[in-house]
Amino acid sequence: MQSVLSRLVDAVGPAYLLTDPADMAGYVVDARRRYLGSALCVARPGTTEEVAAIVRLCAESGTALVPQGGNTGMCGGATPVGARPAVVVSLERMVTIRDMDTVNSTITVDAGCRLVSIQQAAEQAGKLFPMSLGSEGNCQIGGNIATNAGGTAVLRYGNMRDLVLGIEAVLPDGRIWNGLRRLRKDNTGYDLKHLFIGSEGTLGIITGAVLRLCSRPTTSITVLASLNDIDHVLALLDALRDVFGERITTFEAMSHNEYELVLCTHAQLRDPMQVHGSWYVFMEITGMGTEDPHAAVEQFLSHHMEYGHILDATLAQTLAQSENIWRIRHSVTEANLRAGAAVSHDTSVPVSQVPDFVRQSEYGIQRAFPEADVYFVGHVGDGNIHVIAILPHAQCTAPERFAALAQQINDIVDQVTLTLAGSISAEHGIGRSNRMRLRRYKDPIELAFMDAIKAVFDPKNIMNPGTLL
Amino acid sequence: MQSVLSRLVDAVGPAYLLTDPADMAGYVVDARRRYLGSALCVARPGTTEEVAAIVRLCAESGTALVPQGGNTGMCGGATPVGARPAVVVSLERMVTIRDMDTVNSTITVDAGCRLVSIQQAAEQAGKLFPMSLGSEGNCQIGGNIATNAGGTAVLRYGNMRDLVLGIEAVLPDGRIWNGLRRLRKDNTGYDLKHLFIGSEGTLGIITGAVLRLCSRPTTSITVLASLNDIDHVLALLDALRDVFGERITTFEAMSHNEYELVLCTHAQLRDPMQVHGSWYVFMEITGMGTEDPHAAVEQFLSHHMEYGHILDATLAQTLAQSENIWRIRHSVTEANLRAGAAVSHDTSVPVSQVPDFVRQSEYGIQRAFPEADVYFVGHVGDGNIHVIAILPHAQCTAPERFAALAQQINDIVDQVTLTLAGSISAEHGIGRSNRMRLRRYKDPIELAFMDAIKAVFDPKNIMNPGTLL
Repeated sequence: MQSVLSRLVDAVGPAYLLTDPADMAGYVVDARRRYLGSALCVARPGTTEEVAAIVRLCAESGTALVPQGGNTGMCGGATPVGARPAVVVSLERMVTIRDMDTVNSTITVDAGCRLVSIQQAAEQAGKLFPMSLGSEGNCQIGGNIATNAGGTAVLRYGNMRDLVLGIEAVLPDGRIWNGLRRLRKDNTGYDLKHLFIGSEGTLGIITGAVLRLCSRPTTSITVLASLNDIDHVLALLDALRDVFGERITTFEAMSHNEYELVLCTHAQLRDPMQVHGSWYVFMEITGMGTEDPHAAVEQFLSHHMEYGHILDATLAQTLAQSENIWRIRHSVTEANLRAGAAVSHDTSVPVSQVPDFVRQSEYGIQRAFPEADVYFVGHVGDGNIHVIAILPHAQCTAPERFAALAQQINDIVDQVTLTLAGSISAEHGIGRSNRMRLRRYKDPIELAFMDAIKAVFDPKNIMNPGTLL
Repeated sequence: MQSVLSRLVDAVGPAYLLTDPADMAGYVVDARRRYLGSALCVARPGTTEEVAAIVRLCAESGTALVPQGGNTGMCGGATPVGARPAVVVSLERMVTIRDMDTVNSTITVDAGCRLVSIQQAAEQAGKLFPMSLGSEGNCQIGGNIATNAGGTAVLRYGNMRDLVLGIEAVLPDGRIWNGLRRLRKDNTGYDLKHLFIGSEGTLGIITGAVLRLCSRPTTSITVLASLNDIDHVLALLDALRDVFGERITTFEAMSHNEYELVLCTHAQLRDPMQVHGSWYVFMEITGMGTEDPHAAVEQFLSHHMEYGHILDATLAQTLAQSENIWRIRHSVTEANLRAGAAVSHDTSVPVSQVPDFVRQSEYGIQRAFPEADVYFVGHVGDGNIHVIAILPHAQCTAPERFAALAQQINDIVDQVTLTLAGSISAEHGIGRSNRMRLRRYKDPIELAFMDAIKAVFDPKNIMNPGTLL
């Protein structure tokens, strides 16, 4: 191994190859602190060519590689855990915005650019890069692409997959594939880019990308509404779509107990609602150019309040009000951490099945764990609902005990998901956490093709072994 | 072979297996009548299980299969041409709309459904299926998916790829893969659906699909404008996007000589322009719900006429006026047929490179062929410009002579395309026509992966041999 290490030092320079455990500490643990691994070294290349040199050296010696972006993933897919000594490749030094083409509405970036930097670069050019996530300040675009990130604007702008026109990647043998196309249309064979998107670092290391930019809305209206039940939430979405169509950027829902929990645990947040309900909906509706949908939104809300479809609604009048509303939405994770031991899920079902999913998963969990609190929050417009079962801390002090309980709760939710033709991982991916669930629930035909494709690209199995497959 | 034939008769029933050359005539020639082939038989299965039975029989005997939808392709990809006897599998009897879910905004269909039938079903449900093509009355959705169809609404709604949530396909060994997911988000491994989309029948036979439906616009505004040059066309697109964003559904351009040719050859069409220019732009701008962008569009046009960016513009006031404008756009192919021997291209470049592409390809063709007329028409908003060189009929009476000239013109256009980082096939695909050009211009890394993936799915090479790869 020493010879690989010394050659890696030559490839990236001694300043950028970390081997001291103290220096590596932040790279060998995942964001949720569920996986603590160890690495042969952490390489921090500054160019695509340096990434290629690292991968070539590892390919020659059969050394495992773990690509790492902002290390904000939810499933441990970027953490070096396992028997094989691994080289962590951090893209954090590759932060150049390579090209901005406003006429083509594209931006070409290094994979290590943070999402927020790309949002800002787009804004400065008068455009919008619409991907929006809780971790946008820290996550890197390469990781967003490798995990096909979702977030709060998918309803209108799609997943990461829909925002990528081209990629550059270092293949598992160290060759550089330049697929940095800036085209809206290209029908010249199998679309390999779509294999890499969502492949979680198992087919190669994404080093650059061409991203689609959108027109920047000039008006943005934030609405918070309370409703009687989840059926009314779905009916509201349907009615809203008929009037506002693709101008609805965001349509998120939260159960009442989650809403209360957030407000209880965050004293600085103000409750904007007069009348409370069983569910809350967070909406964003945008307008372009001279168009201002304010009056139409107000009319829509009055109409639906009059008919009792909505109990109460508040339309943010100031930026501060809007920020307060979105902070309620984004404080969920922190609130849940304080409440107990959380077992959370990332389920998607057809949007029309969301009410059944909510009722059946709540019933199933409560029956088995009467002491659990069951919360819901999620992207209803995408059929992506996070169920969170929170158990009393006292019940979960031993990690093995918690793992066993979590497994039982997963089984309950997964069975409901399967019955409703849903997905066990809507936006978080598989990583290390969900590998066994994937093997259990995924169509064997697809699993076999995934394994065969992996063998085509990475016959030595050096790319992120133990993640996804 | 006889034993395969008799077993195929058992599989689909004697009424649905054609072997008489007269009955097969329409299935062995392509839409542009450039390829005349022959088939062992034409099988017309009525169910996915029957398709699977056919494929199993062919896999056992190593018989080639040619899947065929509406047979409207531009590149001969669905025509049985070649040394190996082939079974044509026509999906035309599989026309069931399996499911309509307006809350989930999806429709699930058999692959043989014609595009127009799906558009109509969506409309009846108050939704929009936005894919729109010249051949929409005849093409089938399975073919649209297998070729990743483009068309006139890509600017706003994307290519076929962007409208497919799930597919069902019969694999080359006869197994049925049920990938009919109705989910907006699903991050559980490599996205195999995207391999099938655009694979031109080389990985399996698509038998069903889940398609995304959109909200139906309530207002649609058609505008025709004349401009000085292609740079003004690009500037207009940019300005229009700033004001109307994703409300621009269509932005197509045509060179003056093409516009003249269409009007000369179609006496029933009215010329709506007072002032003519070197270029014409066909636009559609839509509004949702109560929103009516008429006034904003009028203001936009006046402003840009005042400043000389537009020479003249007409906003259709009646449905008849709108239809007249779109008929000018859609009569191009017919007009060109009458004008001479056409060599047409399906190029895409970054939108910002469109002016360079137009100038360089025109210059290159004119220099080599002073007698040719060079026309342009295309989807400027997608960077997809069709260059059409029309040679006098007299020069092209011998097919070999025409083929040699076409090859020279292709070379000129392809070189310009490569220089501008474009694609030699934006929306038409590769089929049989462009195989050699693909081998010549595509990145060898991608070609090698395409070949390897093909070998994983179809090791016996029975699926549409001679097409794409």
